[in-house]
Amino acid sequence: MANAEILSIGTELLLGEVLDTNSKFFATELAKLGIDCYYRVTVGDNKDRIKASLKQAFDRSDIILTSGGLGPTADDLTTECVAEFLNLPMVMDAEVLKEIEKLFAERNLSMPETNKKQAMRPRGAGVLPNPSGTAPGILWIVPTEVLASAGVVDPQRKRAILTFPGVPSELVNMWNQSGAAFIADNFLTGAIFSIELKHYGIGESALAEKYSALLDGNSPTVAPYAGQGECRLRVAAKAATMEEARALVMPVAQEIRRESGWLCYGQDDDTLESVVGQLLIQHNLTLSVAESCTGGLVSKRLTDIGGSSAYIKLNAVTYANEAKLKLLGVSEGLLDKHGAVSDECARAMAEGIARLSGTEIGLSITGIAGPTGGTPDKPVGTVYLGLFSNGQLATKRLNLGTKLNRQEIRFRTSSAALNMVRLHLLSRNFVVQ
Amino acid sequence: MANAEILSIGTELLLGEVLDTNSKFFATELAKLGIDCYYRVTVGDNKDRIKASLKQAFDRSDIILTSGGLGPTADDLTTECVAEFLNLPMVMDAEVLKEIEKLFAERNLSMPETNKKQAMRPRGAGVLPNPSGTAPGILWIVPTEVLASAGVVDPQRKRAILTFPGVPSELVNMWNQSGAAFIADNFLTGAIFSIELKHYGIGESALAEKYSALLDGNSPTVAPYAGQGECRLRVAAKAATMEEARALVMPVAQEIRRESGWLCYGQDDDTLESVVGQLLIQHNLTLSVAESCTGGLVSKRLTDIGGSSAYIKLNAVTYANEAKLKLLGVSEGLLDKHGAVSDECARAMAEGIARLSGTEIGLSITGIAGPTGGTPDKPVGTVYLGLFSNGQLATKRLNLGTKLNRQEIRFRTSSAALNMVRLHLLSRNFVVQ
Repeated sequence: MANAEILSIGTELLLGEVLDTNSKFFATELAKLGIDCYYRVTVGDNKDRIKASLKQAFDRSDIILTSGGLGPTADDLTTECVAEFLNLPMVMDAEVLKEIEKLFAERNLSMPETNKKQAMRPRGAGVLPNPSGTAPGILWIVPTEVLASAGVVDPQRKRAILTFPGVPSELVNMWNQSGAAFIADNFLTGAIFSIELKHYGIGESALAEKYSALLDGNSPTVAPYAGQGECRLRVAAKAATMEEARALVMPVAQEIRRESGWLCYGQDDDTLESVVGQLLIQHNLTLSVAESCTGGLVSKRLTDIGGSSAYIKLNAVTYANEAKLKLLGVSEGLLDKHGAVSDECARAMAEGIARLSGTEIGLSITGIAGPTGGTPDKPVGTVYLGLFSNGQLATKRLNLGTKLNRQEIRFRTSSAALNMVRLHLLSRNFVVQ
Repeated sequence: MANAEILSIGTELLLGEVLDTNSKFFATELAKLGIDCYYRVTVGDNKDRIKASLKQAFDRSDIILTSGGLGPTADDLTTECVAEFLNLPMVMDAEVLKEIEKLFAERNLSMPETNKKQAMRPRGAGVLPNPSGTAPGILWIVPTEVLASAGVVDPQRKRAILTFPGVPSELVNMWNQSGAAFIADNFLTGAIFSIELKHYGIGESALAEKYSALLDGNSPTVAPYAGQGECRLRVAAKAATMEEARALVMPVAQEIRRESGWLCYGQDDDTLESVVGQLLIQHNLTLSVAESCTGGLVSKRLTDIGGSSAYIKLNAVTYANEAKLKLLGVSEGLLDKHGAVSDECARAMAEGIARLSGTEIGLSITGIAGPTGGTPDKPVGTVYLGLFSNGQLATKRLNLGTKLNRQEIRFRTSSAALNMVRLHLLSRNFVVQ
């Protein structure tokens, strides 16, 4: 089985100015294809170190993916270094040059002389098209005689190099349009199909225990991943064709969805906010939110979804007590007796925002995100959620503990609130887990 | 001058399950100390590959920082690999064991046998304390004879190894409390002082041009960095003492602040939202926000700041036209004539939210975040901001173009809105750039 190595090129990475999301993208994509990745290496814009890293990668790996260093300036060295390491002259690709000139012409700009460099590549190397930028990459099964002349260990073994620019959006486009298929065609004998089942309301170890029998399985493989108060189960299989791989995955995925029930909120690109949106549209319902400690985060997440204006009309951030009184009709007596962080206040806020906005469902959040404001009874991390629907009210108290910081408490609270709406929409009843 | 290498250990990194923020943290911190970092390498939980990477790092670098692989389970291999590579036996550290046992006792748990492993280290290695977790690391100037016996190239040269757990918060604590000082004491002959001056409203190339003379300087060095619609200028100097380094940086930093004027909104940890908060407190003013296309993001950013309840009382997300009518008193005639995405609507919303919330200042945002909803006159990325204060109104139109996606348009809009408030608070007049 072929393995891959990821080489990130750019001094800005070694200075910590940029977070390397490209390597994570490649790693995820390689895992999806079932190709092992044993090494990720980062070097700066330095010829000797880039060439030494290329040598090492060619010696020990089959597929080399590089990012960065394809720009028009003097410190963009990747293509040159590939050519020098492989003992090949650089040649101008007239087709690519035309493409670059066209791009500039379309923008009514004249092409700077330096951009010509982006049309050069090692003699014989294939072109990896870049539909969204000026710099194409290399996409190439390097011939055995070239590997041998460069002194690569075991030159008979098949080696590929693919070079990408450092701009994440261009890199992703190039991978999706050409890179992934090139690797699959040249290195995979079969196809991989996978589904991620997203869970909320169950921890990673509980999920692993629940599905321990499946986790030992091999085809499909099932693996749990945790992150930000959520958990994912990835079900993946490899087979001769995509249809066969899919046929291995689907029954297990369906079994997990059945078994997990409402603990599984969706799959792959689904988010709590997108699922809540779909359910609202499906039931033709609208939602409003009154937030205190989350300060607008729940509203922000709901409106991250394009088309959310179908179900979001008016949300309020009632940070001060007076705002809760004035806008939501929370009574002064209630606040005096129970305080703003209370079950009673959450109820009044949820009903108040639904009435104000004229939505079928009202959601409220009131709590203490810290770092100050905690009391022995209600320490930092105490949050009350309220839900109003069909004239009925439900509440939930969260105790998020003292280990999370302000941002984490706010984010986890927003997820719990979205999940409360989701469970209500699924049940159309006040089943709140 | 000493150089460093960063080694990230963990199969989860090679599978793309985790984004490697630790390497970026180390890279940033090393740059602050003025220590060059030439390589970052990532390997999985595999003994042979970890040892091969350690060998390579010791051969070519002076300081080796590792993260990951210090846990109690069988796939946590870092300490073992360091011992094996250096031909040293593992010894139990009774002090460290006591610390770990104490931690468990405090939580009323009995210590699992596997955790004993975390008290083991290569004979002679120093301990890097972990104040917030069970796994301490190694912090060690490796003796010449140990380097020689391990076959390290040039064993006379001073080498240090520091091992950190993969948990980012523990790693950061350990670096701040012990790691940074250890490296400074052992490898720096002087001190580094730096300031980052944060700019809004000027692009990276314009900033570089404005300060081109300073960018050529050497002591202090001045370098521009761009990110998410903002720009930073880092001013740094190295000298025998911190006082001397500071004395080199401060006059230049002050000159830049003077020259940049309001284009420079703060330094180091300042954010637009924290600076707006400070100005509001300073002037004893309160702010309210009515958001349409940003959907709560501006409110979320303002309330990210602990203590923001001093100036934030009531914000509204008026997503639907009816919400703008009902809550903010925007007239139906205005919406019919000009539409919700208009200068006129932004004015009415800003005044409406200030009156509703009873705050001195009202801010409004209405626009088209996409992906749909654009027209030839008002394409996606068209946004109007409104500001009401002292009975006066100002507006600003943003044209964010078609290249940004929905999330980017929303984020840049939120920054422009916060900056509009900032400029108003600085001028107490309607100077809007």
